[in-house]
Amino acid sequence: MRLLLAALLSVIPATCIAQDASRETWLLMVDRWGSAEHQMLTLERRGSTIEGRLGRWPMTGRRSGDSLTFVATDGGGTAYHYGGIVVDGAFEGSVDGPDDNDPNRRAVHLVTGRRLPDRPAGPPRRHVFEPTTFSNEFTAARAPVLVIWPGDTVATRTIDSGGVDEHGVTRALYGNPQTGPFFVATAMPGDVLAVHVRRLRLNRDYADSLDGIVGRAMGPSLAARAGGLGRRVRWRLDRERGLASLDDAPERLKGFTVPVRPILGGIAVAPDFGFAPASAGDSGRFGGNMDDNEIVEGTTVYLPVFQPGALLYVGDGHAAQGDGETTQWALETSLDVELTVDVIPARPLSTPRVESDTQISAIGQAGSLDDAVRSATAGLTQWLEQDYGLDLSEISLVLGSSVEYRVVTLAGRNVGVAATLRKSSLAPLSKRLPVPVVR
Amino acid sequence: MRLLLAALLSVIPATCIAQDASRETWLLMVDRWGSAEHQMLTLERRGSTIEGRLGRWPMTGRRSGDSLTFVATDGGGTAYHYGGIVVDGAFEGSVDGPDDNDPNRRAVHLVTGRRLPDRPAGPPRRHVFEPTTFSNEFTAARAPVLVIWPGDTVATRTIDSGGVDEHGVTRALYGNPQTGPFFVATAMPGDVLAVHVRRLRLNRDYADSLDGIVGRAMGPSLAARAGGLGRRVRWRLDRERGLASLDDAPERLKGFTVPVRPILGGIAVAPDFGFAPASAGDSGRFGGNMDDNEIVEGTTVYLPVFQPGALLYVGDGHAAQGDGETTQWALETSLDVELTVDVIPARPLSTPRVESDTQISAIGQAGSLDDAVRSATAGLTQWLEQDYGLDLSEISLVLGSSVEYRVVTLAGRNVGVAATLRKSSLAPLSKRLPVPVVR
Amino acid sequence: MRLLLAALLSVIPATCIAQDASRETWLLMVDRWGSAEHQMLTLERRGSTIEGRLGRWPMTGRRSGDSLTFVATDGGGTAYHYGGIVVDGAFEGSVDGPDDNDPNRRAVHLVTGRRLPDRPAGPPRRHVFEPTTFSNEFTAARAPVLVIWPGDTVATRTIDSGGVDEHGVTRALYGNPQTGPFFVATAMPGDVLAVHVRRLRLNRDYADSLDGIVGRAMGPSLAARAGGLGRRVRWRLDRERGLASLDDAPERLKGFTVPVRPILGGIAVAPDFGFAPASAGDSGRFGGNMDDNEIVEGTTVYLPVFQPGALLYVGDGHAAQGDGETTQWALETSLDVELTVDVIPARPLSTPRVESDTQISAIGQAGSLDDAVRSATAGLTQWLEQDYGLDLSEISLVLGSSVEYRVVTLAGRNVGVAATLRKSSLAPLSKRLPVPVVR
Amino acid sequence: MRLLLAALLSVIPATCIAQDASRETWLLMVDRWGSAEHQMLTLERRGSTIEGRLGRWPMTGRRSGDSLTFVATDGGGTAYHYGGIVVDGAFEGSVDGPDDNDPNRRAVHLVTGRRLPDRPAGPPRRHVFEPTTFSNEFTAARAPVLVIWPGDTVATRTIDSGGVDEHGVTRALYGNPQTGPFFVATAMPGDVLAVHVRRLRLNRDYADSLDGIVGRAMGPSLAARAGGLGRRVRWRLDRERGLASLDDAPERLKGFTVPVRPILGGIAVAPDFGFAPASAGDSGRFGGNMDDNEIVEGTTVYLPVFQPGALLYVGDGHAAQGDGETTQWALETSLDVELTVDVIPARPLSTPRVESDTQISAIGQAGSLDDAVRSATAGLTQWLEQDYGLDLSEISLVLGSSVEYRVVTLAGRNVGVAATLRKSSLAPLSKRLPVPVVR
Repeated sequence: MRLLLAALLSVIPATCIAQDASRETWLLMVDRWGSAEHQMLTLERRGSTIEGRLGRWPMTGRRSGDSLTFVATDGGGTAYHYGGIVVDGAFEGSVDGPDDNDPNRRAVHLVTGRRLPDRPAGPPRRHVFEPTTFSNEFTAARAPVLVIWPGDTVATRTIDSGGVDEHGVTRALYGNPQTGPFFVATAMPGDVLAVHVRRLRLNRDYADSLDGIVGRAMGPSLAARAGGLGRRVRWRLDRERGLASLDDAPERLKGFTVPVRPILGGIAVAPDFGFAPASAGDSGRFGGNMDDNEIVEGTTVYLPVFQPGALLYVGDGHAAQGDGETTQWALETSLDVELTVDVIPARPLSTPRVESDTQISAIGQAGSLDDAVRSATAGLTQWLEQDYGLDLSEISLVLGSSVEYRVVTLAGRNVGVAATLRKSSLAPLSKRLPVPVVR
Repeated sequence: MRLLLAALLSVIPATCIAQDASRETWLLMVDRWGSAEHQMLTLERRGSTIEGRLGRWPMTGRRSGDSLTFVATDGGGTAYHYGGIVVDGAFEGSVDGPDDNDPNRRAVHLVTGRRLPDRPAGPPRRHVFEPTTFSNEFTAARAPVLVIWPGDTVATRTIDSGGVDEHGVTRALYGNPQTGPFFVATAMPGDVLAVHVRRLRLNRDYADSLDGIVGRAMGPSLAARAGGLGRRVRWRLDRERGLASLDDAPERLKGFTVPVRPILGGIAVAPDFGFAPASAGDSGRFGGNMDDNEIVEGTTVYLPVFQPGALLYVGDGHAAQGDGETTQWALETSLDVELTVDVIPARPLSTPRVESDTQISAIGQAGSLDDAVRSATAGLTQWLEQDYGLDLSEISLVLGSSVEYRVVTLAGRNVGVAATLRKSSLAPLSKRLPVPVVR
Repeated sequence: MRLLLAALLSVIPATCIAQDASRETWLLMVDRWGSAEHQMLTLERRGSTIEGRLGRWPMTGRRSGDSLTFVATDGGGTAYHYGGIVVDGAFEGSVDGPDDNDPNRRAVHLVTGRRLPDRPAGPPRRHVFEPTTFSNEFTAARAPVLVIWPGDTVATRTIDSGGVDEHGVTRALYGNPQTGPFFVATAMPGDVLAVHVRRLRLNRDYADSLDGIVGRAMGPSLAARAGGLGRRVRWRLDRERGLASLDDAPERLKGFTVPVRPILGGIAVAPDFGFAPASAGDSGRFGGNMDDNEIVEGTTVYLPVFQPGALLYVGDGHAAQGDGETTQWALETSLDVELTVDVIPARPLSTPRVESDTQISAIGQAGSLDDAVRSATAGLTQWLEQDYGLDLSEISLVLGSSVEYRVVTLAGRNVGVAATLRKSSLAPLSKRLPVPVVR
Repeated sequence: MRLLLAALLSVIPATCIAQDASRETWLLMVDRWGSAEHQMLTLERRGSTIEGRLGRWPMTGRRSGDSLTFVATDGGGTAYHYGGIVVDGAFEGSVDGPDDNDPNRRAVHLVTGRRLPDRPAGPPRRHVFEPTTFSNEFTAARAPVLVIWPGDTVATRTIDSGGVDEHGVTRALYGNPQTGPFFVATAMPGDVLAVHVRRLRLNRDYADSLDGIVGRAMGPSLAARAGGLGRRVRWRLDRERGLASLDDAPERLKGFTVPVRPILGGIAVAPDFGFAPASAGDSGRFGGNMDDNEIVEGTTVYLPVFQPGALLYVGDGHAAQGDGETTQWALETSLDVELTVDVIPARPLSTPRVESDTQISAIGQAGSLDDAVRSATAGLTQWLEQDYGLDLSEISLVLGSSVEYRVVTLAGRNVGVAATLRKSSLAPLSKRLPVPVVR
């Protein structure tokens, strides 16, 4: 059984615990044969009657003494009966509903729960969070390190992909160890998490990389010549001038410099229930190790929410990176990171999106570039439908005349392709609907 | 038997025919079981002795009366014996060499030939060429429309992919009919043809396109919804403001405009001997229907030469095009085109290259994006080796930090990917060798 | 202008020329700006009135003196006006119809034509055809070598991919030179050509091959080790025992033998109008260099017809071949070939099909295996719809439980995948409709 | 911290605990910043001196009182210092070695350990194991359900991919819940686990499936028509006649039957340290959800060992399956399974292999068929090198003439391709070395 609930409690300051007598939010965990399904329960009490929602399903029930019972009804009218007792803000009980495989059978699962704190009064807050542990997986099973609300900002740090911090000290296992997860209160499966990258800065003077070309970028002729490559290379980062240059540069690269342009290689929410934890080197609809060199300071990353609280992870900073991350390691370094989060309720998102002042991209990720370009196109199409109300014929004309496709990464199990539109292209169009950000 | 030779004669003005008593250039055509292999013979006469090169092979022989005999020797020391008679600047004879399949057998093939004109005296010239016929294939079998020399400029026109000219008149069969081929004197197999796009301008007020999304850009979900698409759409081209807008725009695209940025969708040399003619809709190492929206006015396109004279084709202009040409037809239109050609001798080129003031790209073309990205990487690697003398380790560091990958086209049998480096990245490096352009 | 018509005449024996006063078949060639579009005209005369079909379009007109005029109407009701004169069984005239690009304009094209012979009386015939020239392209522009009728059989030979015949003599240029094309009278665009491979036998005692692994089968690690490969290898063919063994076998392969199982690597019809000639090394919906080791004696190959007469080519025999043709050259050899042809009228075919006594396969061909498997699935789906009347749900159940997918070739520009069903799987189903073969 | 160690103890019968005074095997778990790295320690005691191996590294040390200290040296000569105390067969201590990122720094990690039981005396045993819990992940973090030795046989059951057992009762979460893991004593990283599938039998009378075609098998045209598919379908399994037929078959599929041929869709070892747990629906070098319809009774599956004890999982039985598992669900059912395991020491294995009486296959798994065919080719090449001592040239000749490529699955994140050789092809070759199976 996974330990999110207990762990969550440990990061909720006592002063924060809910005082509102009539409105409550609970995080439930259904033990489905050993797999933990997290659900968000929001309810209002009217005497002993309660009403509200379990995720997006309507729910009604009763609260009397330490007993809590309710019935939640899914879109098809099927009822799930929850019942149990509440002790010290914790729920223990069970749910009784139809069997997954046979609607004529019943299945009963144990349920535990924990009441979530109410939102603190006042404006959004800025949290400074100094990480002490790091995650090599994107997972819903890991204890949140902090609970934040929409509009809040977190100032924190990431260590490099090898686990090394800003002081050169190894703090975690290699493989893109991540800072987080941050539990974003109110975020529910089906919502979108908007992560505004407010600040992304170098905090040390070197980055580590490799020479070499990833297998996906080499045909047989190049591969036949690439035998000796794959050695570690160190880059010196000049933070004042914003330039990276090679330590011990070979003669012909003596003057070669690269502009520093820090990116977040990894940014993710926890994957959906029913999926295994994802390696911090993997990617998917949840984001992850996208290694997109456009995720820089000033951009906003949109990710679909699969778990209550979203569970945001960040890591794997690069001081600079070409498209494709063809050296397998980019200029890997630690970073100072500052993020503000928002929640867009109930909005389907087939791919991660990245928005800057000048453009918006959908990031298609798949096992081949041919599939990734399809996914990216679908993601950008969805955006034009949602935000501009265009139909498929109109969208096709916008894409045919204006879309840009860039290979984002070639270095992982997934490759990535960004389908991008410049905002200037779309300026003449009336944006259909403001996106309803919840704060 | 293909008719290049006879045809060639028809485009060589009589005044041009060679007068130099001692130096001669001949175009030979070997009839290899019905396939025409073109060879360039350059020779110097010293009395009745001749010396020179057949392609890149050394050659010696005799010229006496109307008899011409010589022996050319390939890199492995194998001798090919040519002999025949010369009448009116035309050669008729045969070649005797080892059989393709059995070195112990001899094979004799008929050879015809034609003496090429000497280079006109004076500086490079500017030719105005008004096309009257168009080619739906990239082929060495088609009569050159003009003989030009390195450094010369051609001002001509292209019609649109449907065969329609600047007056709206259909002049050729649909399928990217091309202007050309231009015979670039001195260009030999193994050389590189540099085509400088001096001018690329709209010459009419509309472009034709389709709505729709090419199959390669659609996964199953999008495909399931794209049923009704594929209709013709007309764009209005405002040449003064440089903007394209839709005729009969649907309500939501009323204000939608696209900046005009004319490109040459097709630019090619004739494919190598042993290859079939390529459709004007196809692409390959010879260039072709690359549909690269970076082939704009001011750029230079480098193509490997496979045939004597290179045989340059251009066509399929687009007023504008997004990456991928996802509507299958971009904004198809006719164009005024002005090109200057140069020949870079004896330089291998694994892919077409496109250079602008600010960047250089290698265009990988293959049946999948995964293969195209490999080809593009190899092409850019080759460029860094040739022009900067970098080794593979150094190149990998340049690519890993600085390469850009863009999807060029998704609309053909081949897809295309451009691997690009900004010249600013490479400015600190000392360019190893000047590229020896022949003029 | 391509020369099919004139050439065709040369292969029609004079005794064969049509004698039937009232029914005529003509092959027309429309000169569409230099591209030859072939059309089949079948008509019946009633006095000076004629009626019939141009391809599949209805046609009516007049024949008086040497004047022939008629109007053919396409599916959308658009009329095309043909007119000209008939002299010595040849037609010369023009067609007047709407412009390709602008329905308000007219386009006039020259038309030439040739009356085709009537079908000889009697049962289907067996032709023995000894080839003297070979084609390195699949093309509608090449002169047919023989006119045959549905039900006829042709006994002929193919030379090996290097152009070498059964006596070891080079007879054609390397690159899979083909025997043919055979003009199959009555076959029209939209029909299916069924080619029954009656006999496929070795006619010499050796085959030539290479060592090596094609690039598509090698990842970076294997490629890094494959440097020295690509050498010619000769196999000895023991025709009595039906075994191939290596000449000069390395010690460890001394006993290694391969069962002889001759295949036709190349079998094709001419590609559609508007497409360039295909290299004899290329493949597509027209068949071509499919290199399918299931095209053996006893199988039937189905190809969609794109040109009047289909124009059947065969070549590139292999004594044996593993899946994928991973050595680039299989066991290349010359073959004795005997084929019977049938025509199935008006039947769409999205891919070539191969049928044996025990199974039927659809051959998907594309630039990647991922696309080829999609094409093969679509082809097999089409077959189950056509022959069994199954709907897509039913087909999915048949495929999910019973389909077999095999990689056919990795050695060409296209790769191939066969989607196969065993006939035993389908025995319980009632075949909906007999396939109407025309003889 | 993952709990393998403690869990392991619970499945080791007390009677089994090691009695041999001089030889001991320990399972150690190094806590690398929260990730558990398992190591196998085998040692021999000579007085207070100990000698042996940590994994494959040589080790020497001292055991006195409850103190255990030793130094293990890796291939490069780097020493790792272990020290701690032993209480009740459990070790607690630490390891001190060079930092992952900086050889000049030291890193100290906590280590716990548990002495493994000695091998029971007597011949290999047959275990009957009735599973009560199931795993939705392939992971090294899950408690073994049984400890077995090479040569042992396990008779057990698998439930279907939806979690339903032989009685129709849901026992686990959907998503291919697996039986296991089985801890195979002596198996170490770098070894190969050979799993002989002795028995694979239906144990209920139905299987569940879907209609529909997976996205990877559909191009745009087919996808546009597949809208309504994806419904559940039940197959009736006739165990006597060995035939599956559709419940409620549509009229046209009334007589359609499929031969029952049970396969193990899932067979895996735990992935390597540094990798995340794999979903039971995923696959890789560790095997997993390979969905190979050739993994039937009588075959042997070879998997590379990544973790001490290998940790074998099996599940996801199919009563029958076409290539590709194109319905996403094959004929999903529960199975009786009997397996015998062997360990082949120190043998690299780049892919899983499947061997039957008549053939051997390497299973390439990747994000595209194009990559999977490369992996399968490399895997089969490796086998020919290991077992026949062939060089790459010789291997290429065997493959070119004899290899078979089959698409294994299209239904997962990875697709699979099998590269297969018939044993009859190789019979004439002398197998170089017997494979040294450890029992």
